[in-house]
Amino acid sequence: MTELHPASLDHIDLFRACTAEERASLARQCSWRHFHPGEQIIDRASESRDVCMIVEGRVRVVNYSLSGREITFDDVNAGGYLGELSAIDGEPRSASIVALTETHVAFMSPRLFQETVTKHPEVAWQVMKRLARIVRASTGRIMDLSTLGANNRVHAELLRLAKPGLKPDNTAEITPVPIHSDIASRVSTTRETVARVMSDLARDHIVERHGNSLLIRDFEKLEAMVEEVRGD
Amino acid sequence: MTELHPASLDHIDLFRACTAEERASLARQCSWRHFHPGEQIIDRASESRDVCMIVEGRVRVVNYSLSGREITFDDVNAGGYLGELSAIDGEPRSASIVALTETHVAFMSPRLFQETVTKHPEVAWQVMKRLARIVRASTGRIMDLSTLGANNRVHAELLRLAKPGLKPDNTAEITPVPIHSDIASRVSTTRETVARVMSDLARDHIVERHGNSLLIRDFEKLEAMVEEVRGD
Repeated sequence: MTELHPASLDHIDLFRACTAEERASLARQCSWRHFHPGEQIIDRASESRDVCMIVEGRVRVVNYSLSGREITFDDVNAGGYLGELSAIDGEPRSASIVALTETHVAFMSPRLFQETVTKHPEVAWQVMKRLARIVRASTGRIMDLSTLGANNRVHAELLRLAKPGLKPDNTAEITPVPIHSDIASRVSTTRETVARVMSDLARDHIVERHGNSLLIRDFEKLEAMVEEVRGD
Repeated sequence: MTELHPASLDHIDLFRACTAEERASLARQCSWRHFHPGEQIIDRASESRDVCMIVEGRVRVVNYSLSGREITFDDVNAGGYLGELSAIDGEPRSASIVALTETHVAFMSPRLFQETVTKHPEVAWQVMKRLARIVRASTGRIMDLSTLGANNRVHAELLRLAKPGLKPDNTAEITPVPIHSDIASRVSTTRETVARVMSDLARDHIVERHGNSLLIRDFEKLEAMVEEVRGD
């Protein structure tokens, strides 16, 4: 972690409704820090209640079980923000935040966050929209954990990753090839289970590795395998 | 379901910051309905995007797996509200809402909800606080589902229910005695598992049924059984 001079919040989506002057004033009131890949931006045990604006880089929200198993919650890219729960309710952190790349963060105090949200209803509405999205994703994950076996949760996660790259010919490309341990920590299973499911899917010609991409050869088939058990 | 004449929103916490006149005007713009126990207030498949103000009664947020297994998310009492996700993001319902008792509901349109939230920063902040609470509860549940076995999830749920009634002598009373199927659907396991865990706890003198209450005879022991695996 290194201290940085205040830079610009112009590319933080949340503040789009603010004027350039307001953004500049907010930027001066934040604490600016640089983190290297793997460094903790917020420790779950920390006393901080600041909101983190990701000005550059990419970060991950994670939690660890006592046995050290990593449970991933969300990745946030440059332009996004996170850590707002503690600023809103004053309670301790619910998870840790780790830098995935070289990352610039602007830390905004809870007081300044509440002031900004109170002054700008559009900003408040954006905050509600993001929270609503998190609640929906969590509800889906709770349903999957409650009703699907580990194999099907891996299928469902592949489907989620493949959806944006779906082509009219029923194939989809996921680039780069997803890392087994990343999938494992997102769907709460082991790396070994992910490896086994992936090799079963390759054997059945549903997925195929193409250099740096994973090709879903039969998207509908994969979708059917998930829907059959999930009942969507 | 029966239509009702508009009544008062004075006891809905969310509108505490509004004037009595504003609340009366909001009440006139809502649709008022009465539901009997077991009736669906919102069907997951419905097109409605309204927010539900619970003026009288008690309701439950539930989801069902394809096999019909019920997964419970939250209970909301008179004075509370729910169903705000769809009003915020315009997306379909993420769950169903069922009346647990005789229930009066005021349905508020998404447009009116957004107007009210936009006009009253205190109302917006309350909405954010409730969403933050839901995100925290979901995160805890995802961690429990990912890292605890079904037995320990039952222990953790008993602990959660017992906490408000904890006495200095290390006992706690849960009144009324929790229903096994309710616990099962809250921690995503079967009624049979809950029955087995409860009878194990009774055999080990950790819980004891006293008429209409469940007495936790050794709160610390139960806490230790959960912490040992959860690592809190």
